[in-house]
Amino acid sequence: MKSKLVLSYDGTPFAGWQVQPNGTSIQELLERAISCLLRSNTKVIGSGRTDAGVHALAQVAHFSHAQPLPPRFLRSCNALLPPQIRVHSVELVAEDFHARYDAYGKIYHYHLWCEPIHSPFHRLYSLHYPYPFDQQAAQEAANLLLGTHNFSSFANAAHEGAAGKNPVRTLKRLQLVEQEGGLRFEFEADGFLYKMVRNLTAALLEVGSGKSKSSTPHQILLSQNRRLAPAPAPPHPLFLIRVLYLT
Amino acid sequence: MKSKLVLSYDGTPFAGWQVQPNGTSIQELLERAISCLLRSNTKVIGSGRTDAGVHALAQVAHFSHAQPLPPRFLRSCNALLPPQIRVHSVELVAEDFHARYDAYGKIYHYHLWCEPIHSPFHRLYSLHYPYPFDQQAAQEAANLLLGTHNFSSFANAAHEGAAGKNPVRTLKRLQLVEQEGGLRFEFEADGFLYKMVRNLTAALLEVGSGKSKSSTPHQILLSQNRRLAPAPAPPHPLFLIRVLYLT
Repeated sequence: MKSKLVLSYDGTPFAGWQVQPNGTSIQELLERAISCLLRSNTKVIGSGRTDAGVHALAQVAHFSHAQPLPPRFLRSCNALLPPQIRVHSVELVAEDFHARYDAYGKIYHYHLWCEPIHSPFHRLYSLHYPYPFDQQAAQEAANLLLGTHNFSSFANAAHEGAAGKNPVRTLKRLQLVEQEGGLRFEFEADGFLYKMVRNLTAALLEVGSGKSKSSTPHQILLSQNRRLAPAPAPPHPLFLIRVLYLT
Repeated sequence: MKSKLVLSYDGTPFAGWQVQPNGTSIQELLERAISCLLRSNTKVIGSGRTDAGVHALAQVAHFSHAQPLPPRFLRSCNALLPPQIRVHSVELVAEDFHARYDAYGKIYHYHLWCEPIHSPFHRLYSLHYPYPFDQQAAQEAANLLLGTHNFSSFANAAHEGAAGKNPVRTLKRLQLVEQEGGLRFEFEADGFLYKMVRNLTAALLEVGSGKSKSSTPHQILLSQNRRLAPAPAPPHPLFLIRVLYLT
């Protein structure tokens, strides 16, 4: 049998989604809780990693199990997890469901706090950016990145595994939206390369601040040269908002 | 000279507004920062206390100083304060301004999270209340509390000082408003007795949950008997939203 989880987490205290030698990962805590409840070593497969410090409103994961889940599984699972991680739903899915391979898209938001003084309630979840920012220029630069491209200029080298092997992605939406205290960048793509959202954000911040180096984000994209792009923007303002599935 | 501050704080790590023998208070940290910047022992007077764990979006305070404030006072003050406390503005006011006596009203919000699973991002700022709740019954009970009354049934004994001497207050607004994840209770009065918002909230929760004891909030109010009212609701979902002044 296979079940699908939807969970949210405040990434502040964790070393990211994926099991790490150093630091506690969200995947590891989930696997520990579920293995304990099922009395059986259980692997949990997420829709993808999130970096250390990145948050999720609705990450999706799956796991296999030999027996039906015990009653009140959701409640027991949350009781075993720290309060920064909450599983919101669990449902039986087809045996061939795969949280990563079946996802046809993802939505991320990146938050900027643009007022002169940061808010105590948003300091852990937004980048303090109290500088002049040309939203229209940044949006126009963003529009030139839409579509299907080799995004390797905006990908950090992955530590391991399959990530980064095919650097072609389709960026479907990249919208700058005003919100309380500042702005958010909304990203939707069929998938994202390692640190791609943070690298795109950093390039657009350079445009909006007028500090763009010789290369525009579009030129950086075409160059397929990682070194032309600025360093990634920090992780704590980034939220995985949704993982998209056909069913 | 006299200056007025507007500040926000995340009350989670503090022992409340007022200087305490045990634990760090917001007033104490402000006084320490300002005294350091002015090189002179400075008392800071707030519009009123907030309890340990209670937050503020716009607390108001004043202090006297012999010399004009140094340039970049705001920035220096924030640099000396922990990031959970931010001073948003400082302005010179008339010598007779008083943050407490001149306030003609205050607005507080109390947040309930009503979904089955709490949100990692709201857990520190809302009461998890995933129970059936009759909002209309609670609103009707709230409406009976509006107006000018002796609210001593809803006041805890203050630890010290003038608070609680005159228990008559005018409750101008008490509105239950639906919001993301649940509800908020909006309170506006000319002033609040010690723990009054949390005591009123607890009484309205009893009504909405259908667990009301023999006495309704209106009967508790009329009784002027603190023992008829339930224990105060917890502090962490409570925000001081605004302090109202005529000028």
